[in-house]
Amino acid sequence: MTSARGERLGRVRSAMSDVGVDCLLLSLGADLPWLTGYTAMPLERLTMLVLPTDGQATLVVARLEAPRVEPDPATFSILPWDETQNPIEIVSRLVGARRHLAIGDRAWATFLLQLQAHLPGATWRNASSITGPLRAVKDAAEVEALAAASTAADRVAAALVAGDIGLINRTEASVSEEIGRRLVDEGHQRVNFAIVGSGPNSASPHHDAGARVIGAGEAVVCDFGGTMDGYCSDITRTVFTGEPPAEFLELYAVLERAQAAGVAAAGVGTTCEDVDRAAREIIAGAGYGPYFIHRTGHGIGLEEHEDPYIVGGNSRPLVSGNAFSVEPGIYLPGRFGARIEDIVVATDAGPRSLNTVDHALAVVG
Amino acid sequence: MTSARGERLGRVRSAMSDVGVDCLLLSLGADLPWLTGYTAMPLERLTMLVLPTDGQATLVVARLEAPRVEPDPATFSILPWDETQNPIEIVSRLVGARRHLAIGDRAWATFLLQLQAHLPGATWRNASSITGPLRAVKDAAEVEALAAASTAADRVAAALVAGDIGLINRTEASVSEEIGRRLVDEGHQRVNFAIVGSGPNSASPHHDAGARVIGAGEAVVCDFGGTMDGYCSDITRTVFTGEPPAEFLELYAVLERAQAAGVAAAGVGTTCEDVDRAAREIIAGAGYGPYFIHRTGHGIGLEEHEDPYIVGGNSRPLVSGNAFSVEPGIYLPGRFGARIEDIVVATDAGPRSLNTVDHALAVVG
Repeated sequence: MTSARGERLGRVRSAMSDVGVDCLLLSLGADLPWLTGYTAMPLERLTMLVLPTDGQATLVVARLEAPRVEPDPATFSILPWDETQNPIEIVSRLVGARRHLAIGDRAWATFLLQLQAHLPGATWRNASSITGPLRAVKDAAEVEALAAASTAADRVAAALVAGDIGLINRTEASVSEEIGRRLVDEGHQRVNFAIVGSGPNSASPHHDAGARVIGAGEAVVCDFGGTMDGYCSDITRTVFTGEPPAEFLELYAVLERAQAAGVAAAGVGTTCEDVDRAAREIIAGAGYGPYFIHRTGHGIGLEEHEDPYIVGGNSRPLVSGNAFSVEPGIYLPGRFGARIEDIVVATDAGPRSLNTVDHALAVVG
Repeated sequence: MTSARGERLGRVRSAMSDVGVDCLLLSLGADLPWLTGYTAMPLERLTMLVLPTDGQATLVVARLEAPRVEPDPATFSILPWDETQNPIEIVSRLVGARRHLAIGDRAWATFLLQLQAHLPGATWRNASSITGPLRAVKDAAEVEALAAASTAADRVAAALVAGDIGLINRTEASVSEEIGRRLVDEGHQRVNFAIVGSGPNSASPHHDAGARVIGAGEAVVCDFGGTMDGYCSDITRTVFTGEPPAEFLELYAVLERAQAAGVAAAGVGTTCEDVDRAAREIIAGAGYGPYFIHRTGHGIGLEEHEDPYIVGGNSRPLVSGNAFSVEPGIYLPGRFGARIEDIVVATDAGPRSLNTVDHALAVVG
């Protein structure tokens, strides 16, 4: 990994120079592990990599976290701080006279405010404006890591559509827990989410799996993913507990066509908004336009959601190595909804779907 | 809850006026659920409560998240935004001409930067400077919720010190997983962490439970907690797999006295730094001063770490209803370490320890 990191560091420094940023400050989020292998803990104790264009990178970290850091002297040095020291002062000292700064998108606002007070006159921008386009292009090892995570999630989805995960008379929460357990059994180190929305809840795209008991004759949207060896999975399948009514079958057939159209459009050179449009047009054409209330997809990698976003207004063309979800949905409030999601990689040979579990509507028990 | 929320809202508005803040902006973190019952998802889609001193509070939330919000019109209104809208513009419009602003500590830096660009001339401060002291004083229902979570965690710790959780020949990761499972079995909805540090890893306070196989004759630090009905547990016990060497027994005896001194000092009116000092003096007096490398404790409630921090330099006196950890540790790098942690509430009747599992060093298998 060290050489991959060194190469990434070089590309980041070059991108910083291109936009006139002379120091990058990284804390929570995936930019830090992407460059150093270390993930900051979401704590009030600041962890921050200070990365100037013209000097050595330094990881400022609480002394009690420091033993968790795997040293990589070629990439960064480690500067531990003690409980009675102020890490903001330490970071500010390392920033020195530099004033064109970028900070990790997910750094806590409290730290940004304190840094702004210590570094008057600085201009600030989001780190993702520099790192996002770089991280969005996966190298071969990253694509294979995503493929392995997707394949593991596929095995859970295959069990779902095969009816091996009992649904009727169980709570959504219980099914969610089983899906999470299966993700771990299939090799994930961490479950990031396991949405189970049944009956009317299937029309709430980000429903929390709750105490509702799943009945017969209901749509059940299951959207789940985790992290495996650092990279994320994310898949959605919608099943029906019993014979679906004609109205649901019609909706689902439209959705299936829309999702396939989104994947088919996701070739190198197509803009993100055109991928979104390819799926959306089919849904709108069938009269469900107002019921597709979210974007078509999001990039995926070290984070569940990252560049590129497959959304109206994003005119960036896909490049080889972009990995993202294609996940249209149709939601009739109070009644039912459905979503189909696969992870897709844009390659020079065309769109490659990393998830391969059948899309045909499964009738399960 | 609505009346508790209304009462909290009143106290927040009053505290805002006291410091001259005319609008509070809350996103990730516990301030938002404390006031609204709703927890923002850690996503690139902004969720933000806009709470002016002089008007109705509004929760700006992505339309696909909106169904997760339980409406509470007496406290706030809901303003959903669509995927092609810019939520920063919506928040800025709600802020209006107000320019004395506070933002939730854990809001993402990217959102703060965008808000700063949209609201030129504004002054900003941390929301916790307003909400922290209020949230740090738990009401009776909150203390009982913390006590219930602590009691559930106690049952897991009791199993650990009784030797019911096998350690020798298992990986730290496997033991960590079992502890997490037991926390859920005892009533937690979520496991927040389960540190298992064995042998030399016991000297790394925030060690990630890993592939190391636990051997005989080793110190094992287990520090774990989760969330139960919204409130957090957090307990540490250190056990030894076999007969401990005299040097470890001596270290542990000092630690036990230091932890008890910290708890005994934690009465109403004592400053946080004096609680820290009470534990630290005993460790330093025994010659282990350089090996106690963290603060004595942290507040706990809706979040694992919140006000009040039990640390040198915090001269705030404890008040009745403060809840916090007392968790000194001694860590000899490369050799072994130990930590003992209980959650304590300052009450008018003296310090109340919510964890009651024995501190005597347990020799386990």
